[in-house]
Amino acid sequence: MELIKHLNWRYATKKYDESKVSEEKIKQIVEAVNLTASSCGIQPYRVFVISDPSLKSKLGEGSFNGQIANCSHLMVFAAFNDVTPDYIETYIQMSENQRNLPNGAMNDFKNALISFFGPNSAEANALWSEKQAYIGLGTALIAAAELKVDSTPMEGFDSKHFDNLLNLSSKGLHTAVVLSLGYRDSENDYLAKMKKVRLPIDKFSISIDDN
Amino acid sequence: MELIKHLNWRYATKKYDESKVSEEKIKQIVEAVNLTASSCGIQPYRVFVISDPSLKSKLGEGSFNGQIANCSHLMVFAAFNDVTPDYIETYIQMSENQRNLPNGAMNDFKNALISFFGPNSAEANALWSEKQAYIGLGTALIAAAELKVDSTPMEGFDSKHFDNLLNLSSKGLHTAVVLSLGYRDSENDYLAKMKKVRLPIDKFSISIDDN
Repeated sequence: MELIKHLNWRYATKKYDESKVSEEKIKQIVEAVNLTASSCGIQPYRVFVISDPSLKSKLGEGSFNGQIANCSHLMVFAAFNDVTPDYIETYIQMSENQRNLPNGAMNDFKNALISFFGPNSAEANALWSEKQAYIGLGTALIAAAELKVDSTPMEGFDSKHFDNLLNLSSKGLHTAVVLSLGYRDSENDYLAKMKKVRLPIDKFSISIDDN
Repeated sequence: MELIKHLNWRYATKKYDESKVSEEKIKQIVEAVNLTASSCGIQPYRVFVISDPSLKSKLGEGSFNGQIANCSHLMVFAAFNDVTPDYIETYIQMSENQRNLPNGAMNDFKNALISFFGPNSAEANALWSEKQAYIGLGTALIAAAELKVDSTPMEGFDSKHFDNLLNLSSKGLHTAVVLSLGYRDSENDYLAKMKKVRLPIDKFSISIDDN
Protein backbone atom coordinates (compact mmCIF):
# COMPACT_ATOMS: atom_id res chain seq x y z
CA MET A 1 0.00 0.00 0.00
CA GLU A 2 1.30 3.46 -0.93
CA LEU A 3 0.25 4.91 2.43
CA ILE A 4 2.41 2.41 4.31
CA LYS A 5 5.39 3.35 2.15
CA HIS A 6 4.80 7.04 2.87
CA LEU A 7 4.44 6.42 6.60
CA ASN A 8 7.63 4.38 6.66
CA TRP A 9 9.46 7.16 4.81
CA ARG A 10 8.43 9.94 7.17
CA TYR A 11 9.89 10.65 10.61
CA ALA A 12 9.74 13.57 13.02
CA THR A 13 12.42 15.72 11.40
CA LYS A 14 14.67 17.39 13.93
CA LYS A 15 16.72 19.56 11.56
CA TYR A 16 15.87 21.07 8.20
CA ASP A 17 18.17 22.31 5.48
CA GLU A 18 17.72 25.74 3.92
CA SER A 19 15.55 24.78 0.97
CA LYS A 20 11.95 25.91 0.64
CA VAL A 21 8.87 23.86 -0.07
CA SER A 22 7.14 25.06 -3.26
CA GLU A 23 3.84 26.89 -2.97
CA GLU A 24 2.31 24.23 -5.22
CA LYS A 25 3.12 21.52 -2.66
CA ILE A 26 1.91 23.63 0.25
CA LYS A 27 -1.35 24.14 -1.60
CA GLN A 28 -1.84 20.40 -2.01
CA ILE A 29 -1.09 19.69 1.66
CA VAL A 30 -3.64 22.30 2.78
CA GLU A 31 -6.20 21.00 0.30
CA ALA A 32 -5.80 17.48 1.72
CA VAL A 33 -6.39 18.76 5.25
CA ASN A 34 -9.47 20.68 4.12
CA LEU A 35 -10.80 17.46 2.58
CA THR A 36 -10.38 15.18 5.57
CA ALA A 37 -13.17 14.29 8.00
CA SER A 38 -14.32 16.18 11.07
CA SER A 39 -17.06 15.18 13.45
CA CYS A 40 -20.44 16.42 12.17
CA GLY A 41 -18.47 17.67 9.17
CA ILE A 42 -18.24 21.24 10.44
CA GLN A 43 -14.45 21.75 10.34
CA PRO A 44 -14.03 23.46 13.72
CA TYR A 45 -10.44 24.63 13.18
CA ARG A 46 -8.40 26.75 10.82
CA VAL A 47 -4.89 26.30 9.46
CA PHE A 48 -2.33 29.10 9.39
CA VAL A 49 0.59 28.54 7.04
CA ILE A 50 3.54 30.69 7.97
CA SER A 51 6.59 31.19 5.80
CA ASP A 52 7.52 34.69 7.02
CA PRO A 53 10.99 34.14 8.58
CA SER A 54 10.67 36.86 11.20
CA LEU A 55 7.33 35.56 12.42
CA LYS A 56 8.67 31.99 12.52
CA SER A 57 11.62 33.24 14.60
CA LYS A 58 9.35 35.00 17.04
CA LEU A 59 7.10 31.95 17.34
CA GLY A 60 10.14 29.79 18.05
CA GLU A 61 11.50 31.99 20.85
CA GLY A 62 11.86 30.08 24.09
CA SER A 63 10.94 26.73 22.54
CA PHE A 64 13.17 23.68 22.55
CA ASN A 65 11.83 22.93 19.07
CA GLY A 66 14.34 24.57 16.74
CA GLN A 67 12.17 23.42 13.83
CA ILE A 68 9.64 26.22 14.46
CA ALA A 69 12.11 28.85 13.24
CA ASN A 70 14.25 26.52 11.12
CA CYS A 71 11.54 25.03 8.86
CA SER A 72 10.37 26.21 5.45
CA HIS A 73 6.69 26.54 6.37
CA LEU A 74 4.93 26.21 9.71
CA MET A 75 1.33 24.99 9.82
CA VAL A 76 -0.54 26.11 12.93
CA PHE A 77 -3.75 24.19 13.61
CA ALA A 78 -5.97 26.68 15.43
CA ALA A 79 -9.08 25.21 17.03
CA PHE A 80 -12.33 27.03 17.80
CA ASN A 81 -12.75 28.46 21.31
CA ASP A 82 -16.41 27.46 21.15
CA VAL A 83 -18.94 26.07 18.67
CA THR A 84 -21.63 28.72 18.42
CA PRO A 85 -25.15 28.59 16.91
CA ASP A 86 -24.04 31.40 14.57
CA TYR A 87 -21.23 29.28 13.18
CA ILE A 88 -23.49 26.27 12.74
CA GLU A 89 -26.08 28.47 11.01
CA THR A 90 -23.50 29.84 8.56
CA TYR A 91 -21.92 26.45 7.90
CA ILE A 92 -25.26 24.77 7.17
CA GLN A 93 -26.27 27.61 4.88
CA MET A 94 -23.03 27.10 2.97
CA SER A 95 -23.73 23.33 2.85
CA GLU A 96 -27.19 23.91 1.38
CA ASN A 97 -25.70 26.24 -1.23
CA GLN A 98 -22.92 23.81 -2.19
CA ARG A 99 -25.46 21.01 -2.57
CA ASN A 100 -28.01 23.14 -4.44
CA LEU A 101 -30.59 22.41 -1.78
CA PRO A 102 -33.39 24.83 -0.98
CA ASN A 103 -32.88 27.12 1.99
CA GLY A 104 -33.87 25.23 5.15
CA ALA A 105 -33.49 21.75 3.65
CA MET A 106 -30.90 20.87 6.30
CA ASN A 107 -32.82 22.41 9.20
CA ASP A 108 -33.19 19.14 11.11
CA PHE A 109 -29.46 18.55 11.03
CA LYS A 110 -28.77 22.17 11.95
CA ASN A 111 -31.12 22.03 14.93
CA ALA A 112 -29.60 18.75 16.09
CA LEU A 113 -26.15 20.36 16.04
CA ILE A 114 -27.32 23.45 17.91
CA SER A 115 -29.00 21.25 20.54
CA PHE A 116 -25.86 19.18 20.87
CA PHE A 117 -23.23 21.93 21.13
CA GLY A 118 -25.37 24.62 22.77
CA PRO A 119 -25.50 23.15 26.29
CA ASN A 120 -21.77 22.32 26.34
CA SER A 121 -19.31 24.66 28.01
CA ALA A 122 -17.05 26.64 25.70
CA GLU A 123 -14.15 24.60 27.14
CA ALA A 124 -15.78 21.30 26.16
CA ASN A 125 -16.46 22.57 22.65
CA ALA A 126 -12.91 23.93 22.39
CA LEU A 127 -11.51 20.58 23.39
CA TRP A 128 -13.72 18.79 20.90
CA SER A 129 -12.47 21.17 18.23
CA GLU A 130 -8.85 20.38 19.12
CA LYS A 131 -9.48 16.68 18.61
CA GLN A 132 -10.77 17.36 15.12
CA ALA A 133 -7.61 19.36 14.41
CA TYR A 134 -5.57 16.24 15.22
CA ILE A 135 -7.35 14.40 12.40
CA GLY A 136 -6.13 17.25 10.19
CA LEU A 137 -2.63 16.97 11.59
CA GLY A 138 -2.50 13.25 10.78
CA THR A 139 -3.68 14.03 7.27
CA ALA A 140 -1.12 16.81 6.75
CA LEU A 141 1.83 14.62 7.60
CA ILE A 142 0.63 11.96 5.17
CA ALA A 143 0.12 14.58 2.46
CA ALA A 144 3.62 15.92 3.07
CA ALA A 145 5.12 12.43 2.93
CA GLU A 146 3.45 11.65 -0.39
CA LEU A 147 5.09 14.81 -1.77
CA LYS A 148 8.42 13.84 -0.17
CA VAL A 149 8.23 16.86 2.07
CA ASP A 150 9.54 16.33 5.60
CA SER A 151 7.52 17.37 8.59
CA THR A 152 7.47 17.48 12.39
CA PRO A 153 4.28 17.40 14.46
CA MET A 154 4.87 19.41 17.62
CA GLU A 155 3.12 20.04 20.91
CA GLY A 156 6.07 21.35 22.90
CA PHE A 157 5.41 25.07 22.46
CA ASP A 158 3.86 27.87 24.46
CA SER A 159 0.33 28.04 23.06
CA LYS A 160 -0.38 31.45 24.66
CA HIS A 161 2.70 32.85 22.91
CA PHE A 162 1.39 31.51 19.60
CA ASP A 163 -2.13 32.79 20.25
CA ASN A 164 -0.79 36.28 20.96
CA LEU A 165 1.55 36.51 17.98
CA LEU A 166 -1.14 35.25 15.61
CA ASN A 167 -3.86 37.32 17.26
CA LEU A 168 -6.00 34.20 17.53
CA SER A 169 -8.18 35.24 20.44
CA SER A 170 -9.87 37.97 18.40
CA LYS A 171 -10.69 35.33 15.80
CA GLY A 172 -12.23 32.95 18.37
CA LEU A 173 -9.33 30.52 17.93
CA HIS A 174 -6.48 29.03 19.93
CA THR A 175 -3.43 27.01 18.96
CA ALA A 176 -4.01 23.26 19.18
CA VAL A 177 -0.96 21.75 17.53
CA VAL A 178 1.65 22.67 14.92
CA LEU A 179 3.42 20.96 12.04
CA SER A 180 6.64 22.19 10.50
CA LEU A 181 7.42 21.46 6.85
CA GLY A 182 10.70 21.47 4.97
CA TYR A 183 13.50 19.21 3.82
CA ARG A 184 15.59 17.14 6.19
CA ASP A 185 19.21 18.00 6.82
CA SER A 186 20.26 14.34 6.83
CA GLU A 187 23.84 15.06 7.81
CA ASN A 188 22.93 16.97 10.93
CA ASP A 189 19.69 15.34 12.00
CA TYR A 190 20.44 12.57 14.51
CA LEU A 191 17.03 11.06 13.97
CA ALA A 192 17.21 10.85 10.16
CA LYS A 193 18.99 7.51 10.17
CA MET A 194 17.43 5.96 13.27
CA LYS A 195 15.10 3.03 13.00
CA LYS A 196 11.43 3.88 13.45
CA VAL A 197 10.17 2.39 16.72
CA ARG A 198 6.68 0.91 16.84
CA LEU A 199 4.80 -1.59 18.96
CA PRO A 200 4.54 -5.14 17.59
CA ILE A 201 1.21 -5.19 15.81
CA ASP A 202 -0.31 -7.72 18.23
CA LYS A 203 0.47 -5.42 21.17
CA PHE A 204 -1.01 -2.41 19.41
CA SER A 205 -4.17 -4.02 18.11
CA ILE A 206 -6.56 -6.65 19.45
CA SER A 207 -8.92 -8.56 17.15
CA ILE A 208 -12.28 -9.77 18.37
CA ASP A 209 -13.79 -12.04 15.76
CA ASP A 210 -16.51 -14.64 15.86
CA ASN A 211 -14.27 -17.68 16.03
CA MET B 1 -1.96 13.72 -5.56
CA GLU B 2 -3.23 10.21 -4.72
CA LEU B 3 -4.22 11.27 -1.21
CA ILE B 4 -6.54 13.99 -2.54
CA LYS B 5 -8.19 11.43 -4.83
CA HIS B 6 -8.69 9.08 -1.88
CA LEU B 7 -10.10 11.84 0.32
CA ASN B 8 -12.51 12.91 -2.41
CA TRP B 9 -13.65 9.32 -2.82
CA ARG B 10 -14.42 8.72 0.84
CA TYR B 11 -17.46 9.96 2.74
CA ALA B 12 -19.04 9.13 6.10
CA THR B 13 -20.91 6.00 5.05
CA LYS B 14 -24.37 5.80 6.57
CA LYS B 15 -25.35 2.34 5.35
CA TYR B 16 -23.25 -0.70 4.52
CA ASP B 17 -24.12 -3.70 2.39
CA GLU B 18 -23.58 -7.25 3.67
CA SER B 19 -20.12 -7.86 2.27
CA LYS B 20 -17.09 -8.31 4.48
CA VAL B 21 -13.73 -6.58 4.30
CA SER B 22 -10.92 -9.10 3.82
CA GLU B 23 -8.56 -9.79 6.70
CA GLU B 24 -5.68 -8.76 4.42
CA LYS B 25 -7.14 -5.26 4.04
CA ILE B 26 -7.90 -4.97 7.75
CA LYS B 27 -4.31 -5.89 8.46
CA GLN B 28 -3.02 -3.12 6.21
CA ILE B 29 -5.32 -0.52 7.76
CA VAL B 30 -4.15 -1.44 11.27
CA GLU B 31 -0.53 -1.45 10.16
CA ALA B 32 -0.93 2.09 8.78
CA VAL B 33 -2.37 3.29 12.07
CA ASN B 34 0.48 1.67 13.99
CA LEU B 35 2.95 3.50 11.73
CA THR B 36 1.54 7.00 12.07
CA ALA B 37 2.90 9.64 14.46
CA SER B 38 2.06 10.18 18.11
CA SER B 39 3.42 12.88 20.36
CA CYS B 40 6.70 11.73 21.94
CA GLY B 41 6.23 8.62 19.80
CA ILE B 42 4.82 6.55 22.63
CA GLN B 43 1.52 5.42 21.04
CA PRO B 44 -0.79 6.02 24.01
CA TYR B 45 -3.79 4.15 22.63
CA ARG B 46 -4.77 0.72 21.37
CA VAL B 47 -7.03 -0.37 18.54
CA PHE B 48 -9.69 -3.05 18.92
CA VAL B 49 -10.94 -4.54 15.66
CA ILE B 50 -14.30 -6.18 16.11
CA SER B 51 -15.96 -8.41 13.53
CA ASP B 52 -17.96 -10.59 15.96
CA PRO B 53 -21.59 -9.85 14.94
CA SER B 54 -23.07 -10.35 18.37
CA LEU B 55 -20.57 -8.01 20.01
CA LYS B 56 -21.14 -5.38 17.29
CA SER B 57 -24.89 -5.66 17.93
CA LYS B 58 -24.45 -5.17 21.65
CA LEU B 59 -22.14 -2.20 21.10
CA GLY B 60 -24.70 -0.63 18.79
CA GLU B 61 -27.61 -0.93 21.22
CA GLY B 62 -29.17 2.44 21.96
CA SER B 63 -27.01 4.29 19.43
CA PHE B 64 -28.41 6.31 16.53
CA ASN B 65 -25.43 5.05 14.54
CA GLY B 66 -26.72 1.93 12.81
CA GLN B 67 -23.25 1.47 11.32
CA ILE B 68 -21.89 0.10 14.61
CA ALA B 69 -23.87 -3.11 14.21
CA ASN B 70 -24.25 -2.94 10.43
CA CYS B 71 -20.57 -2.64 9.42
CA SER B 72 -18.13 -5.39 8.50
CA HIS B 73 -15.47 -4.44 11.09
CA LEU B 74 -15.54 -1.89 13.86
CA MET B 75 -12.30 -0.21 14.96
CA VAL B 76 -12.41 1.08 18.52
CA PHE B 77 -9.66 3.55 19.37
CA ALA B 78 -9.08 3.09 23.10
CA ALA B 79 -6.95 5.75 24.76
CA PHE B 80 -4.86 5.36 27.91
CA ASN B 81 -6.46 6.41 31.22
CA ASP B 82 -3.07 7.73 32.30
CA VAL B 83 0.55 7.80 31.13
CA THR B 84 2.50 6.04 33.85
CA PRO B 85 6.25 5.86 34.53
CA ASP B 86 5.94 2.07 34.14
CA TYR B 87 4.59 2.40 30.64
CA ILE B 88 7.28 4.90 29.67
CA GLU B 89 9.94 2.59 31.13
CA THR B 90 8.68 -0.38 29.11
CA TYR B 91 8.27 1.60 25.91
CA ILE B 92 11.76 3.07 26.07
CA GLN B 93 13.26 -0.34 26.78
CA MET B 94 11.50 -1.65 23.68
CA SER B 95 12.82 1.35 21.71
CA GLU B 96 16.39 0.64 22.79
CA ASN B 97 15.96 -3.01 21.78
CA GLN B 98 14.50 -2.18 18.37
CA ARG B 99 17.34 0.25 17.69
CA ASN B 100 20.05 -2.08 19.00
CA LEU B 101 21.09 0.51 21.54
CA PRO B 102 22.66 -0.42 24.85
CA ASN B 103 20.38 -0.53 27.85
CA GLY B 104 20.01 3.01 29.23
CA ALA B 105 21.05 4.77 26.01
CA MET B 106 17.71 6.60 25.93
CA ASN B 107 17.67 7.45 29.63
CA ASP B 108 17.64 11.20 29.09
CA PHE B 109 14.60 10.98 26.87
CA LYS B 110 12.92 8.57 29.28
CA ASN B 111 13.50 10.86 32.24
CA ALA B 112 12.22 13.86 30.29
CA LEU B 113 9.00 11.97 29.54
CA ILE B 114 8.55 10.87 33.14
CA SER B 115 9.09 14.45 34.34
CA PHE B 116 6.62 15.73 31.78
CA PHE B 117 3.77 13.26 32.32
CA GLY B 118 4.31 12.51 36.00
CA PRO B 119 2.96 15.77 37.45
CA ASN B 120 -0.10 15.81 35.16
CA SER B 121 -3.42 14.53 36.42
CA ALA B 122 -4.59 11.19 35.02
CA GLU B 123 -7.41 13.15 33.32
CA ALA B 124 -4.96 15.43 31.52
CA ASN B 125 -2.89 12.47 30.37
CA ALA B 126 -6.04 10.63 29.28
CA LEU B 127 -7.13 13.61 27.22
CA TRP B 128 -3.69 13.92 25.65
CA SER B 129 -3.90 10.22 24.77
CA GLU B 130 -7.28 10.73 23.11
CA LYS B 131 -5.86 13.43 20.87
CA GLN B 132 -3.16 11.04 19.68
CA ALA B 133 -5.88 8.51 18.88
CA TYR B 134 -7.46 11.07 16.55
CA ILE B 135 -4.24 11.13 14.50
CA GLY B 136 -4.72 7.38 14.20
CA LEU B 137 -8.36 7.81 13.22
CA GLY B 138 -7.41 10.23 10.43
CA THR B 139 -4.83 7.72 9.23
CA ALA B 140 -7.25 4.79 9.30
CA LEU B 141 -9.80 6.48 7.11
CA ILE B 142 -7.12 7.33 4.56
CA ALA B 143 -5.83 3.75 4.63
CA ALA B 144 -9.35 2.45 4.12
CA ALA B 145 -9.96 4.84 1.23
CA GLU B 146 -6.77 3.76 -0.54
CA LEU B 147 -8.06 0.16 -0.34
CA LYS B 148 -11.52 1.30 -1.52
CA VAL B 149 -12.99 0.29 1.82
CA ASP B 150 -15.73 2.58 3.09
CA SER B 151 -15.65 3.91 6.62
CA THR B 152 -17.46 6.10 9.12
CA PRO B 153 -15.74 7.96 11.95
CA MET B 154 -18.13 8.18 14.89
CA GLU B 155 -18.34 9.96 18.20
CA GLY B 156 -22.07 9.58 18.84
CA PHE B 157 -21.95 6.53 21.08
CA ASP B 158 -22.10 5.80 24.79
CA SER B 159 -18.44 5.45 25.71
CA LYS B 160 -19.20 3.87 29.11
CA HIS B 161 -21.24 1.18 27.33
CA PHE B 162 -18.27 0.48 25.06
CA ASP B 163 -15.81 0.50 27.96
CA ASN B 164 -17.92 -2.06 29.83
CA LEU B 165 -18.49 -4.42 26.93
CA LEU B 166 -14.81 -4.37 25.98
CA ASN B 167 -13.67 -4.52 29.57
CA LEU B 168 -11.42 -1.54 28.94
CA SER B 169 -11.16 -0.23 32.46
CA SER B 170 -9.20 -3.30 33.61
CA LYS B 171 -6.76 -2.62 30.77
CA GLY B 172 -6.27 1.04 31.76
CA LEU B 173 -8.10 2.16 28.62
CA HIS B 174 -11.25 4.03 27.63
CA THR B 175 -13.03 4.48 24.31
CA ALA B 176 -11.98 7.66 22.50
CA VAL B 177 -13.52 7.32 19.06
CA VAL B 178 -14.63 4.58 16.67
CA LEU B 179 -14.45 3.88 12.96
CA SER B 180 -16.67 1.42 11.14
CA LEU B 181 -15.42 -0.32 8.00
CA GLY B 182 -17.33 -2.04 5.21
CA TYR B 183 -18.76 -1.43 1.77
CA ARG B 184 -21.35 1.22 1.03
CA ASP B 185 -24.90 0.26 0.17
CA SER B 186 -25.15 2.96 -2.51
CA GLU B 187 -28.84 2.35 -3.20
CA ASN B 188 -29.89 2.88 0.38
CA ASP B 189 -27.35 5.37 1.67
CA TYR B 190 -28.74 8.90 1.23
CA LEU B 191 -25.27 10.38 1.65
CA ALA B 192 -23.57 8.23 -1.00
CA LYS B 193 -24.47 10.54 -3.86
CA MET B 194 -24.41 13.86 -2.03
CA LYS B 195 -21.75 16.42 -2.82
CA LYS B 196 -18.97 16.69 -0.24
CA VAL B 197 -19.21 20.01 1.57
CA ARG B 198 -16.04 21.87 2.45
CA LEU B 199 -15.01 25.42 3.24
CA PRO B 200 -13.49 27.42 0.38
CA ILE B 201 -9.76 26.99 0.83
CA ASP B 202 -9.20 30.70 1.60
CA LYS B 203 -11.70 30.51 4.48
CA PHE B 204 -10.10 27.36 5.87
CA SER B 205 -6.48 28.40 5.61
CA ILE B 206 -4.63 31.67 6.07
CA SER B 207 -1.14 32.23 4.60
CA ILE B 208 1.34 34.50 6.30
CA ASP B 209 4.31 34.97 4.00
CA ASP B 210 7.04 37.55 3.86
CA ASN B 211 5.53 39.71 1.14
